[in-house]
Amino acid sequence: MNLNFVSLPQTTINVVYSSVDLPQLQSPCLICGFPGTGYVGKIAIDHLIQELNAKHLADIYSASFPPQIIIRPDGVTELMKNTIFYSKASVSSSNDVLLLTGDSQPISPESEYLLAEQILDIAAKFNTKKVFTLAASVTGVFVDKPRVFGTATDSDIVKTFSEKNILTMDSGIVVGMNGLIIGIAKLRGMQGTCLLGETSGYVVDAKASKSILERLLSVVDIKVDMNKLEKKAKDTERLIQSVQQQVAEKAVGGQQPGLLRKPDIGYIA
Amino acid sequence: MNLNFVSLPQTTINVVYSSVDLPQLQSPCLICGFPGTGYVGKIAIDHLIQELNAKHLADIYSASFPPQIIIRPDGVTELMKNTIFYSKASVSSSNDVLLLTGDSQPISPESEYLLAEQILDIAAKFNTKKVFTLAASVTGVFVDKPRVFGTATDSDIVKTFSEKNILTMDSGIVVGMNGLIIGIAKLRGMQGTCLLGETSGYVVDAKASKSILERLLSVVDIKVDMNKLEKKAKDTERLIQSVQQQVAEKAVGGQQPGLLRKPDIGYIA
Amino acid sequence: MNLNFVSLPQTTINVVYSSVDLPQLQSPCLICGFPGTGYVGKIAIDHLIQELNAKHLADIYSASFPPQIIIRPDGVTELMKNTIFYSKASVSSSNDVLLLTGDSQPISPESEYLLAEQILDIAAKFNTKKVFTLAASVTGVFVDKPRVFGTATDSDIVKTFSEKNILTMDSGIVVGMNGLIIGIAKLRGMQGTCLLGETSGYVVDAKASKSILERLLSVVDIKVDMNKLEKKAKDTERLIQSVQQQVAEKAVGGQQPGLLRKPDIGYIA
Amino acid sequence: MNLNFVSLPQTTINVVYSSVDLPQLQSPCLICGFPGTGYVGKIAIDHLIQELNAKHLADIYSASFPPQIIIRPDGVTELMKNTIFYSKASVSSSNDVLLLTGDSQPISPESEYLLAEQILDIAAKFNTKKVFTLAASVTGVFVDKPRVFGTATDSDIVKTFSEKNILTMDSGIVVGMNGLIIGIAKLRGMQGTCLLGETSGYVVDAKASKSILERLLSVVDIKVDMNKLEKKAKDTERLIQSVQQQVAEKAVGGQQPGLLRKPDIGYIA
Repeated sequence: MNLNFVSLPQTTINVVYSSVDLPQLQSPCLICGFPGTGYVGKIAIDHLIQELNAKHLADIYSASFPPQIIIRPDGVTELMKNTIFYSKASVSSSNDVLLLTGDSQPISPESEYLLAEQILDIAAKFNTKKVFTLAASVTGVFVDKPRVFGTATDSDIVKTFSEKNILTMDSGIVVGMNGLIIGIAKLRGMQGTCLLGETSGYVVDAKASKSILERLLSVVDIKVDMNKLEKKAKDTERLIQSVQQQVAEKAVGGQQPGLLRKPDIGYIA
Repeated sequence: MNLNFVSLPQTTINVVYSSVDLPQLQSPCLICGFPGTGYVGKIAIDHLIQELNAKHLADIYSASFPPQIIIRPDGVTELMKNTIFYSKASVSSSNDVLLLTGDSQPISPESEYLLAEQILDIAAKFNTKKVFTLAASVTGVFVDKPRVFGTATDSDIVKTFSEKNILTMDSGIVVGMNGLIIGIAKLRGMQGTCLLGETSGYVVDAKASKSILERLLSVVDIKVDMNKLEKKAKDTERLIQSVQQQVAEKAVGGQQPGLLRKPDIGYIA
Repeated sequence: MNLNFVSLPQTTINVVYSSVDLPQLQSPCLICGFPGTGYVGKIAIDHLIQELNAKHLADIYSASFPPQIIIRPDGVTELMKNTIFYSKASVSSSNDVLLLTGDSQPISPESEYLLAEQILDIAAKFNTKKVFTLAASVTGVFVDKPRVFGTATDSDIVKTFSEKNILTMDSGIVVGMNGLIIGIAKLRGMQGTCLLGETSGYVVDAKASKSILERLLSVVDIKVDMNKLEKKAKDTERLIQSVQQQVAEKAVGGQQPGLLRKPDIGYIA
Repeated sequence: MNLNFVSLPQTTINVVYSSVDLPQLQSPCLICGFPGTGYVGKIAIDHLIQELNAKHLADIYSASFPPQIIIRPDGVTELMKNTIFYSKASVSSSNDVLLLTGDSQPISPESEYLLAEQILDIAAKFNTKKVFTLAASVTGVFVDKPRVFGTATDSDIVKTFSEKNILTMDSGIVVGMNGLIIGIAKLRGMQGTCLLGETSGYVVDAKASKSILERLLSVVDIKVDMNKLEKKAKDTERLIQSVQQQVAEKAVGGQQPGLLRKPDIGYIA
């Protein structure tokens, strides 16, 4: 009887495909909307999944997600996960696409690198060449028309930003999965683009999601009904107006309230 | 002579069985009572182990338990561990059962996933189909009759909660081993149920343990003498009354003392 | 050209033996003096190494030691390490012994388990049956005659404590390498004893080292000249008197100074 | 379909060489300038790379670098990395050299050990015998002429310090990659030297970089044009004068401003 400690794999990722037979996809572009500040990327991707009526491809579980289960409204529970859906080219879309959404990002930096590798491994099975991540550019102020910023792994992509009404970033960093996915994609010979929707950082911001999704759709040549997202964006607008009004009321007395100041710099998540 | 650093296994779990020959068990359900808030689950499981006169199956040591040894009253010491006992079907119990208790939960999130896998590996040796975890629902207030909440991996189980006087949770999360064990069980084709006993979070709460054990026993069809646990529950009740009295005395002057306020939300551990 | 990230071993321990041919030792007992509170154990072991004129066996490097190099008085530098010496049975000692000293303990809990395994692997090469760790029992007060406490993996050992003037601990924990080494030794069929010298926790305490070494020597049947350690113990005594005087002077006005209070409980490291 | 969690490599380092055919180098010395306090080492190494017109050898990516991408002025982005350049012996240099620069040091201690191993693995491919790291000795005060301190893995090297105007350190530690690289080099039979430029710790300090590079060049027998670095050093000098003036103005009233005090001890990074 061996009484020594024995080793177990430590960082574990568990990919569960919906079926053993993978769908036939033609170099689909991969579009990722992780949960993050303002849920800017996730709301956009969830809208796209819904409107494209995308199919479930695989669930990704990871020991680096928060150690907890989520309870659904019907009382049934499950582990936190990321999920990849797919949609084939159609009237709406000139390309096959993979769409990633999820409950969480990993809780350790090294695991973020590894999850990014795992996601790209899945995309590589389908010969994906182009990867997009949808992030937030956090500014600390509310704005009427959220701008969309961009960075990419290739100067050819960056050159197309201006015609798509995307502002090219020329410094700074993008932290977390939205950055790593495209940084590692570049190492693997794929092209990566990160779009960042301007958001205050104070609210779940469907308005920024709408801005970023509009730019993305023009880049990837997909058309979807935007009504439901526009409705959510209006809800966000009302929420922001309500917050601004409360702040303004507290600020009677002349001092410019903090939330409405123009920031010098923002940070990007 | 190789002077390079060489690798050692990092996360290590060491399972030591009492004997080489494993007992013959018929798809025992696995019931887990980890140490946690109020020791709600652990007190319940320890009572069950005692009353069923359960046999020792295996000790589980892990490099992710706190790096320390525990000294027993006789001066003898040992590593922290989890232990699994078993009990065969009998007059008291219509099923074979595996019962898990322990000194500690792992101290890192990734290790929690791995310990959960390891525990389920052991249960899988006996063809376990059903897994139960006993947790605490921390409310911050003392109550006369602790309620018992539940969530499960299958809607069929959730549907049985009301007839067992278990309140179905419809949102939120369960963190730690109590959540992960059933979340991972689901991925492995087992059914998982988590019961949560309402507790203040301020005291070791045998009263909540008694509530949760009563519900569990009706679900798994086991009968045990509850006298010793009822005695402990009475001790808890006296402790709570003493605490409440002290708080009330300090609160003379009209302000409602914090401990007795009705909370809007609780958290679950 | 493979552009994927490739794996490297993560937790690495590097054992460098002085020579390829290991010495012939007869089930030497292993005595460990890690750096810790008051350097109680390390000072004792270093005295033993010096007085037994012990020979160098192996250096143990670990990626879990603090990431730094130590500069010696001659300007030469090296990595942090643990070192094992050995001494054969002689007039002074009825047994062969392995003696462990070091610059550091690991900086992560899991690495403590793994270093303990590695140290016991080395001892197992020589068929070691008995393991001793020298720790501190931190009390927060200065005492004239530091007591020595003990715990062990076997009740047979605990029963011998009283005749050796060692106080048996009957509760609590021992954290860190001093605990893990004997806890894991037990799992591997060795016997482990941890002795803990009472110390204030405020000074490097050679007086506690002397107390603990005296008890250890009577247990393992080794005789060494204690002069140099007694001299260091006197230095500690003078340091303590100086600290106490300063505290007393500040305390004029009636309040009992904190350092001299009798604590209800101590903690053990 | 296997539903168990499967393991992935955890700590991953990815070395991407510029070409499959490695250059022919004759036991090049390896000189490392990691980013750190005041960028003392990095500025020195970047100057050397530029003036020697060094060629790109390899990029080193690591999952232990901060999980982020860096955006360049042209909008193109990439992962954080370390890079090794090489330069062959010439009129300027009597030896082949490897030059390491980078965006970041690893964010966990264990990963620092592993990156150091990886860098030395690359150097070992070229039969490197001598390794140099350029660090900062942080003093908290501004000085006119930054001194350069040194420590090494062999007393033969230490003995040469005085003739090179390098002050021998006789105690203390060097933390991080600058220490580990030479500490591990020693274990692998290479000779290591760490030079440390005196710096305040308050500014990016090209003046300290110039001091350290001058000493290094005399040790490794390389000659390069120092004009561009001298210009940067002058910029640093002006910055320091400006800071000192501001501090002095605030200190009118007699109290010696903190930044100009002579510190008792410094720390080394």
